[in-house]
Amino acid sequence: MRTVKVRAGGRQYPVLVDEGALDRVGELLRERLGAREVLVVTDRTVSALHGRRLRRSLARGGVRARRWTELRPGESAKSLATARGLYDSWLGVGADRGTPVLALGGGVVGDVAGFAASTYHRGLPLVHLPTTVIAQVDSSVGGKTAVNFSGLKNLVGTYHQPELVISDPQLLGTLSDRDYRAGLAEAVKVAVTLRPDLLDLLEREAEGFSRRDQGLLAGLVGGCVEAKSEVVGRDERDEDVRAILNYGHTVGHAVEAACRGRLRHGEAVAIGMNAAAWVGEVLGVTVGEVRTRQNALLERLGLKLALPGADKNLILRNLKLDKKVRGKKTRFVLTLQVGGASVWPHISSRLLRAAVRFVTS
Amino acid sequence: MRTVKVRAGGRQYPVLVDEGALDRVGELLRERLGAREVLVVTDRTVSALHGRRLRRSLARGGVRARRWTELRPGESAKSLATARGLYDSWLGVGADRGTPVLALGGGVVGDVAGFAASTYHRGLPLVHLPTTVIAQVDSSVGGKTAVNFSGLKNLVGTYHQPELVISDPQLLGTLSDRDYRAGLAEAVKVAVTLRPDLLDLLEREAEGFSRRDQGLLAGLVGGCVEAKSEVVGRDERDEDVRAILNYGHTVGHAVEAACRGRLRHGEAVAIGMNAAAWVGEVLGVTVGEVRTRQNALLERLGLKLALPGADKNLILRNLKLDKKVRGKKTRFVLTLQVGGASVWPHISSRLLRAAVRFVTS
Repeated sequence: MRTVKVRAGGRQYPVLVDEGALDRVGELLRERLGAREVLVVTDRTVSALHGRRLRRSLARGGVRARRWTELRPGESAKSLATARGLYDSWLGVGADRGTPVLALGGGVVGDVAGFAASTYHRGLPLVHLPTTVIAQVDSSVGGKTAVNFSGLKNLVGTYHQPELVISDPQLLGTLSDRDYRAGLAEAVKVAVTLRPDLLDLLEREAEGFSRRDQGLLAGLVGGCVEAKSEVVGRDERDEDVRAILNYGHTVGHAVEAACRGRLRHGEAVAIGMNAAAWVGEVLGVTVGEVRTRQNALLERLGLKLALPGADKNLILRNLKLDKKVRGKKTRFVLTLQVGGASVWPHISSRLLRAAVRFVTS
Repeated sequence: MRTVKVRAGGRQYPVLVDEGALDRVGELLRERLGAREVLVVTDRTVSALHGRRLRRSLARGGVRARRWTELRPGESAKSLATARGLYDSWLGVGADRGTPVLALGGGVVGDVAGFAASTYHRGLPLVHLPTTVIAQVDSSVGGKTAVNFSGLKNLVGTYHQPELVISDPQLLGTLSDRDYRAGLAEAVKVAVTLRPDLLDLLEREAEGFSRRDQGLLAGLVGGCVEAKSEVVGRDERDEDVRAILNYGHTVGHAVEAACRGRLRHGEAVAIGMNAAAWVGEVLGVTVGEVRTRQNALLERLGLKLALPGADKNLILRNLKLDKKVRGKKTRFVLTLQVGGASVWPHISSRLLRAAVRFVTS
């Protein structure tokens, strides 16, 4: 078992990465949190895949699931309405400030269960059990919670660090090929911006990662969590260095929104990373190696670098919306060399337009 | 101008107490936060009384109110629906993470504006401009935000420390006699539990406080904020010492809920303090001086100590509900001697029943 310690919000909590950890969740909850009962939040798809094993694991550890809530799968569950439903359901069993919430699922489940947990009685203890690549390498660590509002992603949310994260790479075995590969884009993002050693590993073992080799995945998840933990420890509230984790996300989000549902988040981020590296080259600040290595790796992992024929104008409108809502400036991250990223003060809209043309033709 | 520094959540912020501070709000926002625009949240009653002065004050400081939201007065505005309305309204003007929220009002406005501010874009800067005694001596300091949910007070909320609190004792001049006196009960609570010097002051100058003497009020507000700041600095998240601020609130809340709207919060707390002191005496741990001095002072300030004929059974049911929702134990605070309060591990339900009988007959 690999343990990564994350320091944030004046506290420290462990991320445990281990094959088969799902079978020891009950034990771990008893040992680490002294919990005898939990409020489980998951979705129907994940519950069908891993629900029985989790129930058995809890029972073995002597932990009772006071509530077992299965959300509908997909982004639409990330809403204030879902949070209200969770409040009602927790209230129905008299959950108090000491009852932990256990979020079993991908980013959507983690975000909305985390939001409800952070606001019910001003904060319940939270345990993440991430089941997707993105959730294991990224979203389960760092304490961001969110729901969408009025069509805007993550408009409403909090910072609420979990007590414990349990990452079991075995769970990644049940993902569809497409979801699995898309998730690896976030790992490539971490590698390119922060961890040259992980980039080497991904390149060297691309075939092993394609086969979902358990040992390799445990190493990758652990490394990404370490990198993220360092960034979050320096900047929990996303005021400066944490923004580096947005590499590829400015254009990526705009592309994702323009393709409403046709692209996975990671697929859009891969295209966004290509755009970001190209912008850096045009500005003369990103060395050629970044785009060459990043793009070759993304392609070997089965990810596309461009979306010919996509609606350029819609993507550009989304970029402007991002700008409008987040202050006057687009927050753009450039990777100057492998392992060295930086938030760029200003990218002209002319250059942004050219970058969008570059990844859509 | 008196400045009290509050340390909480890894930061420090000032509470400014000064007669006529309302006229310098614009200036202070520019100076202290570098703000050029704010999102104002108030209620219709408060806006009618102080809205014009605040608008002029903002204009003088060169600060623009991008939104001016007037909630309906009263507890019913403390809801998720109000928070949604604020999100929509702030979104409409493209408010970003840097736009401060200015909450002008009593506890309800501060709590719900604070909740919306803490969750919109995962947290906007917050400035409190409290207009009631309770808000100035207590609720504007310490970072608790809340909305009611499913009939339960403060079920949903966050900890979100403000950037700045501006307390102007002049504003207390427009409160009704009843609201003003009820608010003083919270000041008596702070004095009895934490600050013998403030108890002396309140006793010595009870007539001056009844006349709402500005200088006396500034001193009282400053002293209460100091005391609260110390407690919050040691325990932001209400895990131990902060519970002391609940003195009088266990029975108080149950009485308040049983009288739905017929009692002011402070009036219920005065009755709860009487009950708490009596319980401590029965247990043999509270010296007689506590109840004698506290009760004599509350009566001089025009507050009642009991509610003959109130529905005992309903109050007891509310006490059990409190117990059920907050874990198995009633969190009961006893003041052993003036300035020395402590959370009591267990109060038998037999003794609680007797205490309720004591304050209702």
